[in-house]
Amino acid sequence: MASSNVTHNPADMAPPARGLYSHAVEIPANSRQLFVAGQVGVRPDGSLPEGFDEQVEQMMRNIGAVLASAGMDFADVVKVNAYCRSAEEIIAYAGIRNRFFDGAPPATTAIVVPGLANPDWLIEADVVAAKQG
Amino acid sequence: MASSNVTHNPADMAPPARGLYSHAVEIPANSRQLFVAGQVGVRPDGSLPEGFDEQVEQMMRNIGAVLASAGMDFADVVKVNAYCRSAEEIIAYAGIRNRFFDGAPPATTAIVVPGLANPDWLIEADVVAAKQG
Amino acid sequence: MASSNVTHNPADMAPPARGLYSHAVEIPANSRQLFVAGQVGVRPDGSLPEGFDEQVEQMMRNIGAVLASAGMDFADVVKVNAYCRSAEEIIAYAGIRNRFFDGAPPATTAIVVPGLANPDWLIEADVVAAKQG
Repeated sequence: MASSNVTHNPADMAPPARGLYSHAVEIPANSRQLFVAGQVGVRPDGSLPEGFDEQVEQMMRNIGAVLASAGMDFADVVKVNAYCRSAEEIIAYAGIRNRFFDGAPPATTAIVVPGLANPDWLIEADVVAAKQG
Repeated sequence: MASSNVTHNPADMAPPARGLYSHAVEIPANSRQLFVAGQVGVRPDGSLPEGFDEQVEQMMRNIGAVLASAGMDFADVVKVNAYCRSAEEIIAYAGIRNRFFDGAPPATTAIVVPGLANPDWLIEADVVAAKQG
Repeated sequence: MASSNVTHNPADMAPPARGLYSHAVEIPANSRQLFVAGQVGVRPDGSLPEGFDEQVEQMMRNIGAVLASAGMDFADVVKVNAYCRSAEEIIAYAGIRNRFFDGAPPATTAIVVPGLANPDWLIEADVVAAKQG
């Protein structure tokens, strides 16, 4: 689905590192906005995949489920903030994440953290999305 | 006060961990929004409570004061991001926080951090709120 | 440029620590919003300054370039979230940052993190901005 949001990657600055994100996304006036809580890799039945990649994939599916509940999809995502355990896992996460964005990643931030609310969670990410009409 | 925002907890994903938050909150178009700086447990006179629980309670009162300044209250809060020192303190904070939300918690994220701008601060949280009209 | 956003620093709470930020900024309805990805101190040619202060200054110039791409400037910034390596560097960053805000700093949050996506990056910050019309 086409989004009403506008991506900015100005030519007078270095391109986004490794091409993994967009420098900014603009939401037009009169949009509704969705603020998504920090999502983790827990499956609908409450179980948790063991591997990092599997948790990232399930986390992205969970984000997709929340977006769908609001009549939105990944094309409407403006910003993703992710919390990882290492720089290496940030890069791995971004690669998996971007398969859900179909070549047009949103604005993102990712930081290394010493822990999350549950020590079994290997990643957490929250999202802002917006859609006109 | 009733809020114009809409909570999303879709049935096709696991419910929010420990029931402590909502998966997402949607802001309708034509809302004004309030972005609140990271708040800490400093009292109006500049003093700082010693205990963790006391700092969380004062932090929540500070958030309430900022909301009131904009003609909003806790029912208008969309997102809370908190920065704590341990997973245990994240759970303790969420319990105290939710007494201010009257059974309808917003979307939240909480991460463990190694430090804040002042080593005496035991917690910090920032907030997004929104209200129509 | 005058901004359509409204700053809140209510008198019934302690003023912002060290006067370095505003307690909240309100965006009126019918504003367009810009969500800026985590920016770092990389120059337009891809090189990275060695010193912390130099990286902060370049990061702020990068934020300025993204704002300009959306027809905005620093007066339209609502929130800045920064990720630093120590409490001391948070204070140093805030001083440099505020030279770009001309006496009217936005709402901010800053936390200490153990790492960013690239170990050479000494600071990262993301921004939300908004403008009517």
